[in-house]
Amino acid sequence: MASEKAGSRVWIVPDCFLPAKSTGDLKSHESNCVLNIGKKPATLRLTAYFENREPTAGFQATCPPRRTIHIRLDSLENRRGERILVGTPFALKIESSVKVVVQHTRLDTTQPALALMTTMAYAAG
Amino acid sequence: MASEKAGSRVWIVPDCFLPAKSTGDLKSHESNCVLNIGKKPATLRLTAYFENREPTAGFQATCPPRRTIHIRLDSLENRRGERILVGTPFALKIESSVKVVVQHTRLDTTQPALALMTTMAYAAG
Amino acid sequence: MASEKAGSRVWIVPDCFLPAKSTGDLKSHESNCVLNIGKKPATLRLTAYFENREPTAGFQATCPPRRTIHIRLDSLENRRGERILVGTPFALKIESSVKVVVQHTRLDTTQPALALMTTMAYAAG
Amino acid sequence: MASEKAGSRVWIVPDCFLPAKSTGDLKSHESNCVLNIGKKPATLRLTAYFENREPTAGFQATCPPRRTIHIRLDSLENRRGERILVGTPFALKIESSVKVVVQHTRLDTTQPALALMTTMAYAAG
Repeated sequence: MASEKAGSRVWIVPDCFLPAKSTGDLKSHESNCVLNIGKKPATLRLTAYFENREPTAGFQATCPPRRTIHIRLDSLENRRGERILVGTPFALKIESSVKVVVQHTRLDTTQPALALMTTMAYAAG
Repeated sequence: MASEKAGSRVWIVPDCFLPAKSTGDLKSHESNCVLNIGKKPATLRLTAYFENREPTAGFQATCPPRRTIHIRLDSLENRRGERILVGTPFALKIESSVKVVVQHTRLDTTQPALALMTTMAYAAG
Repeated sequence: MASEKAGSRVWIVPDCFLPAKSTGDLKSHESNCVLNIGKKPATLRLTAYFENREPTAGFQATCPPRRTIHIRLDSLENRRGERILVGTPFALKIESSVKVVVQHTRLDTTQPALALMTTMAYAAG
Repeated sequence: MASEKAGSRVWIVPDCFLPAKSTGDLKSHESNCVLNIGKKPATLRLTAYFENREPTAGFQATCPPRRTIHIRLDSLENRRGERILVGTPFALKIESSVKVVVQHTRLDTTQPALALMTTMAYAAG
């Protein structure tokens, strides 16, 4: 089916930010939501870019065939034990072994009540 | 008119979620908003993808010519009586018999006050 | 300059809705934001599509060269005096005499505090 | 690597607005978030378009190679000392010397609690 070949293998999200503060029952966070409608598992490599230092690479995730994964960015950790700090502007490149579709969402409860924002990631190849 | 051929027959939304909780007068929900500017009715088939189990297919809707439909995802039910559970991350593939345009929106009132997010779905063919 | 030819002449927004209720100082509304970076004025024709009745056409606006206009959808009125009702799901097609770029934004104050959502319109030709 | 050539050199954001009012700890603002995954620095020129007067050009920023910058629009100032006024609808064109990816985000605390909206900018060439 044509749609099984849909998507891209490189996705970019320039505006990432893990708010340091939360109120109420919901923790402020960001999710990278991936859908793999194909027949092969998608091996994902994530690279975080910053304003004033070298990128941090080596974050990994797997999205099985015909599954979605909603990656919590506050839970990512690479083999060197590096994580993404809260309160720091960053950007994300997602590289996949097979074509997937990526959407990026922030939930922010810094001030009472809930704010949401979302966008499809930019398909870069 | 050229614009009548606009759109796509396969659309993808990786970040879907029906919040389990609501406050105030507005119920938390998601809508799949479809516009059919053509002359033929659009028969829509929706498939929900999950993190840990097989997709649920067979959700159906119809968008008549020159009409819009705003599909409430909490109301979808297929012929086997299956529905999409609240509080569960999922992703959606929308397949249409004719070209349409699809936008996806979440309204979340989990915490007091109202949060909204929207994006065009990803056109996959 | 290449960028002066950027944009599209037909844009589509499937998810439009003018909330009937507002709280606080800000009125709930939607805006269709147009940028014309070219040298000729853009004559815009807007058509509203509904769920259960024929579209309403004939809404007009002009975006001069090198200007932006932020069209309030609650202010639109065609020559027959027709307006878009609050509390009714609709969709919008925007046709322009020259290439422009269109972004669509909703501000919702139905429940106390403020909710925002935005997306680029779908470029349809 | 193919992804290093990803992006565009002209980006457009039709809906820009710096809210005049803020509540709580967070100041209402807009950010233009740029990611440069290439090997050369990106020299950025921003032009603001308005509803009733000539555009203001000459806003500048630099995004080093393998870095992101999150440009606060309320901090922009050109060589003539011109800034973007709060409370005024405008639109933005971003031109870069090399390919980058641009996402636009508004945080609005005009009414108590927090509202967010984001979208990828429109890639115009």
